[in-house]
Amino acid sequence: MNVIEAINTRRSIRQYTGEVINDKHIDIILRAGFQAPSAHNFQPQEYIVVKESETLELIAKRHKYAKALPLAGCGIVVCGDTTKESREGSLIADCSASIQNMLLAAHELNLGAVWIGLHPVKEFSEIISEILDIPEHIIPIAIVAIGHPNVKKEAIDRYNEEKIHKEKW
Amino acid sequence: MNVIEAINTRRSIRQYTGEVINDKHIDIILRAGFQAPSAHNFQPQEYIVVKESETLELIAKRHKYAKALPLAGCGIVVCGDTTKESREGSLIADCSASIQNMLLAAHELNLGAVWIGLHPVKEFSEIISEILDIPEHIIPIAIVAIGHPNVKKEAIDRYNEEKIHKEKW
Repeated sequence: MNVIEAINTRRSIRQYTGEVINDKHIDIILRAGFQAPSAHNFQPQEYIVVKESETLELIAKRHKYAKALPLAGCGIVVCGDTTKESREGSLIADCSASIQNMLLAAHELNLGAVWIGLHPVKEFSEIISEILDIPEHIIPIAIVAIGHPNVKKEAIDRYNEEKIHKEKW
Repeated sequence: MNVIEAINTRRSIRQYTGEVINDKHIDIILRAGFQAPSAHNFQPQEYIVVKESETLELIAKRHKYAKALPLAGCGIVVCGDTTKESREGSLIADCSASIQNMLLAAHELNLGAVWIGLHPVKEFSEIISEILDIPEHIIPIAIVAIGHPNVKKEAIDRYNEEKIHKEKW
């Protein structure tokens, strides 16, 4: 699948078969995450790969948008290290670029994935920090749920000409 | 070029030939930007396409990391509408996912591109808001400079096993 095709056909997948994804695929997705650019090349991202069903179920129980996680079978929590990037906005940007790479890589592998937001919703990020023993200086930005899709979603065209401005606002 | 290959070989390009990129390519890159996921599907992104050399030079003169812009020939300013997404962190995340799509699309088209950060550096975002008449409720997040590359950069492997945690931090 070429890049633009992947970008245009990727959808958020929240329904999974429950089939376990293999570690080779997780490795490819993680590697894609690392390849994102970061401001000043600080590379503040850290990744927590969660596969244990008890943990996934605990997260699903406590985070209302993470209900799909247990059946996905894998959640990669993308975090930012504030000692490497002290500007919160840049930290979020770096992690988000990384997450987008991961979502596209998962799509290429015919896996389904969805971005489950944590930060800046304090309630969500605190739940995850508590469950996964994340230290104070690390901000969990989002969970990328990944699994075998149990649904086929058609591509959606989100293009909106009204949002394109020429030369000035 | 498949997705994972594109992700792994994309580099930030700051040297350009000065050759003008065609509007079809700008359209493909913009469309890629629109296809990024956004929290709650609010889609707060807005895009300002700047091609006039006077404007590009003015930005380059006032933003120290935007020196490459005039020779690139095109800068797409990705902004977030705070009336559509009031959480700044989510706004940054949405725009960043969009930017990453655009960088990958540019790479697929054999164009060079680089992410020039604006927000959260107040100095930079204010300069751009002033030059491009951006209203108060719109936050310019970054400029994606796009042009014909005048340099060939080898892929870099940014993988770092130490940043991967299993099950917990």
